[in-house]
Amino acid sequence: MSETIRRPGDTEGNRLDPWFGSYAARARNLRASEIRALFSVVSRPEVVSLAGGMPNLKDLPIAELAESAKQLILHHGAVAMQYGSGQGWEVLRERITEVMAYDGIVGADPDDVVVTTGSQQALDYVAELFIDPGDVVLAESPSYVGALGVFRARQADVVHVDMDQDGLIPEALEATIRGLKSRGRRVKFLYTIPNFHNPAGVTLSESRRALITRICLREGVLIVEDNPYGLLGFHSDPLPALASYCPEGVVYLGSFSKMFAPGFRIGWAYAPHAIRDKLVLASESAILSPSMVGQMAIAQYLSEYDWYGQVKQFRGMYQERCEAMLDALGEYMPDCRWTIPDGGFYTWVTLPEGLDAKSMLPRAVRGQVAYVSGTAFYYDGRGTDHMRLSFCYPTPEEIREGVRRLASVVNAEKELVEMFGAGFVPADAPSASSPLPPTPPEDPGPAPDAR
Amino acid sequence: MSETIRRPGDTEGNRLDPWFGSYAARARNLRASEIRALFSVVSRPEVVSLAGGMPNLKDLPIAELAESAKQLILHHGAVAMQYGSGQGWEVLRERITEVMAYDGIVGADPDDVVVTTGSQQALDYVAELFIDPGDVVLAESPSYVGALGVFRARQADVVHVDMDQDGLIPEALEATIRGLKSRGRRVKFLYTIPNFHNPAGVTLSESRRALITRICLREGVLIVEDNPYGLLGFHSDPLPALASYCPEGVVYLGSFSKMFAPGFRIGWAYAPHAIRDKLVLASESAILSPSMVGQMAIAQYLSEYDWYGQVKQFRGMYQERCEAMLDALGEYMPDCRWTIPDGGFYTWVTLPEGLDAKSMLPRAVRGQVAYVSGTAFYYDGRGTDHMRLSFCYPTPEEIREGVRRLASVVNAEKELVEMFGAGFVPADAPSASSPLPPTPPEDPGPAPDAR
Repeated sequence: MSETIRRPGDTEGNRLDPWFGSYAARARNLRASEIRALFSVVSRPEVVSLAGGMPNLKDLPIAELAESAKQLILHHGAVAMQYGSGQGWEVLRERITEVMAYDGIVGADPDDVVVTTGSQQALDYVAELFIDPGDVVLAESPSYVGALGVFRARQADVVHVDMDQDGLIPEALEATIRGLKSRGRRVKFLYTIPNFHNPAGVTLSESRRALITRICLREGVLIVEDNPYGLLGFHSDPLPALASYCPEGVVYLGSFSKMFAPGFRIGWAYAPHAIRDKLVLASESAILSPSMVGQMAIAQYLSEYDWYGQVKQFRGMYQERCEAMLDALGEYMPDCRWTIPDGGFYTWVTLPEGLDAKSMLPRAVRGQVAYVSGTAFYYDGRGTDHMRLSFCYPTPEEIREGVRRLASVVNAEKELVEMFGAGFVPADAPSASSPLPPTPPEDPGPAPDAR
Repeated sequence: MSETIRRPGDTEGNRLDPWFGSYAARARNLRASEIRALFSVVSRPEVVSLAGGMPNLKDLPIAELAESAKQLILHHGAVAMQYGSGQGWEVLRERITEVMAYDGIVGADPDDVVVTTGSQQALDYVAELFIDPGDVVLAESPSYVGALGVFRARQADVVHVDMDQDGLIPEALEATIRGLKSRGRRVKFLYTIPNFHNPAGVTLSESRRALITRICLREGVLIVEDNPYGLLGFHSDPLPALASYCPEGVVYLGSFSKMFAPGFRIGWAYAPHAIRDKLVLASESAILSPSMVGQMAIAQYLSEYDWYGQVKQFRGMYQERCEAMLDALGEYMPDCRWTIPDGGFYTWVTLPEGLDAKSMLPRAVRGQVAYVSGTAFYYDGRGTDHMRLSFCYPTPEEIREGVRRLASVVNAEKELVEMFGAGFVPADAPSASSPLPPTPPEDPGPAPDAR
């Protein structure tokens, strides 16, 4: 056919995209995360990536999992290969309540669990259910980049609430809610990551948990508790989840991606009945039903394998990597400050005054080390003086080498800032707005911002 | 904690759901499909279900698939169990372009394919990208219940366009578009199922394919071509996809659920570059990445197994069932009319005048046979004189028995209508508004509306 596409309106559409004028308003809010341009770079073998959030799977019992997958399909293939229910397989939901007992959520009803395509999808459903354009969502300052993306796509207004080394500050939360209400703003929910925060690396203290739950209850603000790393504390079992204080005021999001593996894309939401009903409708509408193979494989792993023993092994492995990073930071980067994680994947680094993590990134990548600029974790452009360093994936030796390289980039940057003042960008450096070479057409590999 | 939850506003919230006042506007448009109440009933062994859209998996090579899953995890576990890219695994996208070649889509670039959690999710993304509240979506009359649910959740206004035994009627499409435009309405896209339509069972003729593509191009209306059943024609390979006429004007949705199995929940969209970019962003936001295990298992199946031979086996199996249904309809229900499918899962039955498929359903279920009322497939309450019968899952003998039972329900209904006039509901029958016993707490099993 030789006709060209007629545009819906005279001024709409363009030669690059004839459908430009047809997109919904919210589609304009979908954007690639800041760190997506890193895809092609961080996977180069010569670069030490301290950017990614991929779990380290080297200790998984691969041979057992392989045999287990075979048995699953051989003996339950007709069920495993079929559609399931939108809410998720009942047997897995039962196992999930047992997993949540480690977070202090005792006696949860499997009927209040909804299985999702990773907990990211549960978060997307929650956003779909609650956010009208312009509604306020509260989030820690900083907050998970993938959650901010979901809230942006729903045209929410994210208001950050301060945190310190003990996590979200209750007084700041209360003051923020009251201030917003006094200005007539609608606060839909608080999105919080109480354990081993992404990106801040801190954990909400036990005393604050009760207080924050009480404040939100009193103010009628739903809590969305995101807990992908909860079981990965270095020193102890998890503190009680916020949902254990007040199940009717909390939507709890859980994930198998960090305590087991992300490959099946199975997570869940545990929610009050009425919200649970709507989450099931959202799931039926979005995907009909989550993967039965994935659900059954994970249920089998939880039933037949010492999964908590595996979690303990993961803890030791991540602790070793965390210590390597903290030691290297102490040795090579004494001018920076950083948080001391008790678990999880990340530490949050504050740069010396005048340095800009976002504009420094291309020079770091040229120096063969990658991180995520702090700006990715704010809705409002803050974070230039921070970077997230992850210790989950590289070996302790690689981590040490990565921090050494990063220190030399930081030191060079400091010299420039001292000579020329903040904001200086060397003439020969790629500019911050086009920090990296274009992504090659090959498969970019896992996203470095994967949680 | 003894405090109760404070409601966001005085008149908002209620005792059943304290968060009632907090939901987004669009959440009110999420509703259970008409046929969801059937969940608990159609899975009873004594009921012959002609309602479900589950593929029949009895011919799958389970032993080979089991061994294949084992080898996959054993040799590629570190990749299979990890996060992937939001767009999907490149190897699978390559295989997908080979599958689409059977639909006449030749030389598709794998870079224009986005892998999703079943094609339902691709449809959800398309709706997210294009539909603002009040926008018009065109769909066949009738159309797939799961698509209507997605459009409703996005607050679209679906306008049905007439079809006949050769599928969507081009003249009706053109007149509808022009009528809408003359009234200043914004038509975002045409949603169409050209092959073995769900629920109508008809196929768009080849001559109409060119014509419909041309009309949509000229009018600037994007085509969303949903093709889950395309390979399952009884008599021949598929007619060319609409996307083969004009790739830049069509988003093509593909699925492995019917040509292979739904258990991995893997489908795809093939879209023009600019739309593809936005679909990837939607995927990253909604789920980070689709399941690598599922993608690799399907890529392996496509590479190592005679999948097209398997498709041919499925065709024969479904054809036998279809013939059993058509024969039984001819024998037992001569007062009804029905479409003659050339493939797929469904026939669309027109009831004798005065009968109401929706209000008859409880009596059918009491008579131990289930179907889907035609009303499920309309946005506007039409369809009471139709029902969708599926022949995909039961055996030919069960199908025959199911139609026999249905005929006796229809005949009894006809007698009542002849005696008392249309609209009569027997006093002892459950009313249409509470057609079925409440769903038991057990897992409801697969949704009967699964595509």
